[in-house]
Amino acid sequence: MMLHELQTPCLVLDAVRMERNVARLRARVADLGVRLRPHLKTAKSVEVARRVMDSPGGPATVSTLKEATLFAAAGVRDILYAVGIAPGKLAQVLALRAEGVDLMVVLDTVAQAEAVATASRESGAPIPALIEVDCDGHRSGVLPGDADALVAIGQALERGASLRGVLTHAGGSYTARGADALWQCAENERKGVVQAANILRAAGLPCPVVSLGSTPTAHSATDLTGVTEVRAGVFVFFDLVMAGIGVCSIDDIALSVLATVIGHQRGKGWILVDAGWMAMSQDRGTSKQSVNQGYGVVCDIAGRPYSDLIVSDANQEHGIITVRPGSSSLLPDLAIGDRVRILPNHACATGAQHQSYHVVRGADCKVEAEWPRFSGW
Amino acid sequence: MMLHELQTPCLVLDAVRMERNVARLRARVADLGVRLRPHLKTAKSVEVARRVMDSPGGPATVSTLKEATLFAAAGVRDILYAVGIAPGKLAQVLALRAEGVDLMVVLDTVAQAEAVATASRESGAPIPALIEVDCDGHRSGVLPGDADALVAIGQALERGASLRGVLTHAGGSYTARGADALWQCAENERKGVVQAANILRAAGLPCPVVSLGSTPTAHSATDLTGVTEVRAGVFVFFDLVMAGIGVCSIDDIALSVLATVIGHQRGKGWILVDAGWMAMSQDRGTSKQSVNQGYGVVCDIAGRPYSDLIVSDANQEHGIITVRPGSSSLLPDLAIGDRVRILPNHACATGAQHQSYHVVRGADCKVEAEWPRFSGW
Repeated sequence: MMLHELQTPCLVLDAVRMERNVARLRARVADLGVRLRPHLKTAKSVEVARRVMDSPGGPATVSTLKEATLFAAAGVRDILYAVGIAPGKLAQVLALRAEGVDLMVVLDTVAQAEAVATASRESGAPIPALIEVDCDGHRSGVLPGDADALVAIGQALERGASLRGVLTHAGGSYTARGADALWQCAENERKGVVQAANILRAAGLPCPVVSLGSTPTAHSATDLTGVTEVRAGVFVFFDLVMAGIGVCSIDDIALSVLATVIGHQRGKGWILVDAGWMAMSQDRGTSKQSVNQGYGVVCDIAGRPYSDLIVSDANQEHGIITVRPGSSSLLPDLAIGDRVRILPNHACATGAQHQSYHVVRGADCKVEAEWPRFSGW
Repeated sequence: MMLHELQTPCLVLDAVRMERNVARLRARVADLGVRLRPHLKTAKSVEVARRVMDSPGGPATVSTLKEATLFAAAGVRDILYAVGIAPGKLAQVLALRAEGVDLMVVLDTVAQAEAVATASRESGAPIPALIEVDCDGHRSGVLPGDADALVAIGQALERGASLRGVLTHAGGSYTARGADALWQCAENERKGVVQAANILRAAGLPCPVVSLGSTPTAHSATDLTGVTEVRAGVFVFFDLVMAGIGVCSIDDIALSVLATVIGHQRGKGWILVDAGWMAMSQDRGTSKQSVNQGYGVVCDIAGRPYSDLIVSDANQEHGIITVRPGSSSLLPDLAIGDRVRILPNHACATGAQHQSYHVVRGADCKVEAEWPRFSGW
């Protein structure tokens, strides 16, 4: 099957770029002397996961218990569920652990720690947990220096559950600008999580795992002293947001949406395609960057970007392609039925709109495989 | 099963509100003397479709050939595929028609008309098509008064295919403000499509179908002279964007996302829940309205809105609930594990993130059914 024979819109994965992206971060993390625990929420695919993890058994990070369940069914045995645990999800956690999966949970309150400890005691199976640390005010977590909270949570866990360590995520790095700012995010992320680990240890609590990560900081850190593992997800595919902050180039982006030209509004300089926001997602992550890529950058069927051509607006199943405002580039001569490929703002969001990857290698338009991906909770 | 027993996040559908919404538009359309061809792209559910259509056989509108295929398999026989046809999709159209489905396509260029006519001649089965008319510069379509283009497309179709009529969609109505502006959108939509129909008829071409619609204009039109059918989708569920433009009230919104509290950042006035943008979608359709609802309005588990409480920010699987900026309302006392329901900005976008509806009736938290929904292409 060739790309031009596929029904559109559909998701295309360039395996050459993916392999290069994976090798790049693996080499970095190895140089830094830590372990990589890839975040599988970006790919949600067993085929991709196997090409990213250290081994078929993991380690891995997930964002939902559905991911945990499906990756466990595919043989992954070392899984971190990196979203704050709700008490109502502990039965499912225990069931997965009873099947031999070392599933860890994350939390940042005494109430959660008590719920995890109670469920552990009642089942006779201690659930391991990481305490989330808030390194940059971005989302969840205990402040790195909040010894009272850290120790109280740790002690509550140790009454039945198992304190496995600390975790943080520099969510603020997605809006950082420039190499210096990114390096600062990475160092801040490291300092925060190591400070929390030291507080726990000073209180006589265990803290074997010190986990941090985001794609921007993983690619910017120069020292990970005190850290045991790095988590990152988007690095596998990259996207326009990552290119916009300088962590990759446009030519590194492995994911694109294949679309077909379905119309023109020639007076307005519009080309209409059958990939709207349902196919691209509504992520507009580049809209606040220095270059607003609209809903995505338009390439030819072989993946070569046209000059200054973007999806500037979208309805549910319609994308409106135009030359970037202010550009002197000409609209390419695309006829009804022609195919284009559109690079996404955010790989996690665009991937989530699709049920499989159509795998190609570089500029070769031969589809060598179709890999299923899953969604939902 | 009760709502508080469901795993979160998940989609909740209030059947009482849905039935009221459907009855309201059906009564309007009947009064206006036209037929309703509901757009099933919002619900993507056979169970919902059967409660919205005139009969189990239709008529219906769809936005993808996957919808056409799955609704056809469920017995729908009169289907309009309302996105400009690509030549590569005609084989699938012909296959559905060969199964006895009266599937119509839409187009706005001579190139598409020629492709449809050629495929019709080669298969010996004329494909019926509507010419799309651009009533408000919003997206696709021929200008209503562009007689040359309309007649050229109609004539190209009639060389093998079948010109079934004209269609338009007042996409601009989604950003109209106030009843007068909405009425004007509706009248403009009607005038444009009727003008195009008259041009075709004056040229001796057939035009039995004159199709228009959007939820705002369907609820605002007072005269549909010359029109044969109305299309609308969001009216079934409604959403915050529709409430913001005044087409419904917040209490009409039938769709919500059930979420669980997973944390607090008390110093910042944040409550964290397990519904992020993956569960809500990234639709920010209210961000340019007079009231920005963030990623959604937060209600208690029975569907009653808290005062000025919204999801003000979101990550993939985290929602950050706050009091609306500038409000003097207090943050409700929600504990870890408590459930909330979040009303969406855009029913089509939020629905698309989920694989089923959990059906309740009004403030009763008993889940009386789970209806599957589908996605993809």
